[in-house]
Amino acid sequence: MAIPDTDIYPTATGRALETVKNHQNSSEADIIFYAGWFCPFVQRVWIALEEKGISYEYREENPYHKDPEFLKISPKGLVPAIIYQGQPIHESLVILEFLEEAFPNTKPLLPSSPYARSQIRLALDHISKSILPSFFKLLQSQDTHTQSLARESLYKAFSQFGEGIKGDYWAGEEISLADIALMPWAGRLYILEENREFDIERTGEKFKGWAQRIIKHPAMQNTSSEREHYAQIYGRYLCDEAQSEAAKATRNGGVIP
Amino acid sequence: MAIPDTDIYPTATGRALETVKNHQNSSEADIIFYAGWFCPFVQRVWIALEEKGISYEYREENPYHKDPEFLKISPKGLVPAIIYQGQPIHESLVILEFLEEAFPNTKPLLPSSPYARSQIRLALDHISKSILPSFFKLLQSQDTHTQSLARESLYKAFSQFGEGIKGDYWAGEEISLADIALMPWAGRLYILEENREFDIERTGEKFKGWAQRIIKHPAMQNTSSEREHYAQIYGRYLCDEAQSEAAKATRNGGVIP
Repeated sequence: MAIPDTDIYPTATGRALETVKNHQNSSEADIIFYAGWFCPFVQRVWIALEEKGISYEYREENPYHKDPEFLKISPKGLVPAIIYQGQPIHESLVILEFLEEAFPNTKPLLPSSPYARSQIRLALDHISKSILPSFFKLLQSQDTHTQSLARESLYKAFSQFGEGIKGDYWAGEEISLADIALMPWAGRLYILEENREFDIERTGEKFKGWAQRIIKHPAMQNTSSEREHYAQIYGRYLCDEAQSEAAKATRNGGVIP
Repeated sequence: MAIPDTDIYPTATGRALETVKNHQNSSEADIIFYAGWFCPFVQRVWIALEEKGISYEYREENPYHKDPEFLKISPKGLVPAIIYQGQPIHESLVILEFLEEAFPNTKPLLPSSPYARSQIRLALDHISKSILPSFFKLLQSQDTHTQSLARESLYKAFSQFGEGIKGDYWAGEEISLADIALMPWAGRLYILEENREFDIERTGEKFKGWAQRIIKHPAMQNTSSEREHYAQIYGRYLCDEAQSEAAKATRNGGVIP
């Protein structure tokens, strides 16, 4: 029997907990941020909110409970979701684009040139279609042959991402959505290294350098909990018993929602 | 043996051919548009170019040939791709967003409000993750059980899209990317009706009305070839012998690129 996902540790820990404490009951916050401390899709939005300096109220939501009130905000019951001026928005990449447009006077995470923006959106497309499906497949697969195929796909996908890196960050000297959309998984690569024979040396020098730099970024550190609590979560992925929508889609050969 | 996809009819026909003839050798065109007359992903961009009145040169590209010159423009050899001021861009949804940003003085296909834009991007996400995988699965599946599951998923996905429709068009009284991203498949629904027991009545009144209106749109008509030539292409999908990247991904349980 799977340990029910509803029993996950209830709150962020470590530096992420400090960040949460600084964003409680903020009656004047511009954004209500529905989050799960452990979720990499949540962490994308969290990093962007921190980096842009947008005022937000953090609300921990257990996405496995499917609270009826929360379903009104996020129809699939998924985090992340936000409320802005009474209007709910979900899907991490949609929220990231929204924050750029709704808060034009904060630090931009997309460059101004349409062409440069298109290249970042291509990187986001590559992350969604090539990197993440291979990452989850490697994490969840139980037989070594499937793991081997997924690992090779992941090396190739990371290497392709790496080829596009133009500086300390993906797009050059400024952080952008191309970095932020992948940072949470860079921060979880150690799980594959410790459990799935993942070798960072196989991803190419450019990707390796990026991954090692990016996990030290303050917004990454300030939204990360203690490793022992991720271990509980990812233990269920590693034995393919996780019940997140991403986990179920990976198990059933579907599209990660 | 599959008939090789390289033997497909080489050019657009009917009204689409008239449109092609009006966009040949345009030395002053703003966009070079690499297209395949039969491809629904291409048709998205084609409709947008027509609707926005952007000057473009149409170049027919057979994506099954994987011409080395073309691979420099579109690394996976996929159409659609464009060149703008010497810079290549591929991926249909990335190109659609690019056209909005690079040609701000043409007819907008996204509203100005960040919230309204986010809702359209959610619709695009739904099309990519829910509608198209079910559409291709129903088209290509060879056993009636898999077809039945895909058909039910497609009814549900169309119905959900329909629930968001706010007027004659998805977002209200103006056409937007939410319409354009799905129009090519609305124009191909007859193939499912004739071959896969697809019943438009099962998609809900709002979707049905939208689908029947949208296929009469001038930009849809002006980018559509004669049905007999689609029949040749889709005949290969219906016996699961098509060799497009979307067809192969559907067959292998992968993500449509």
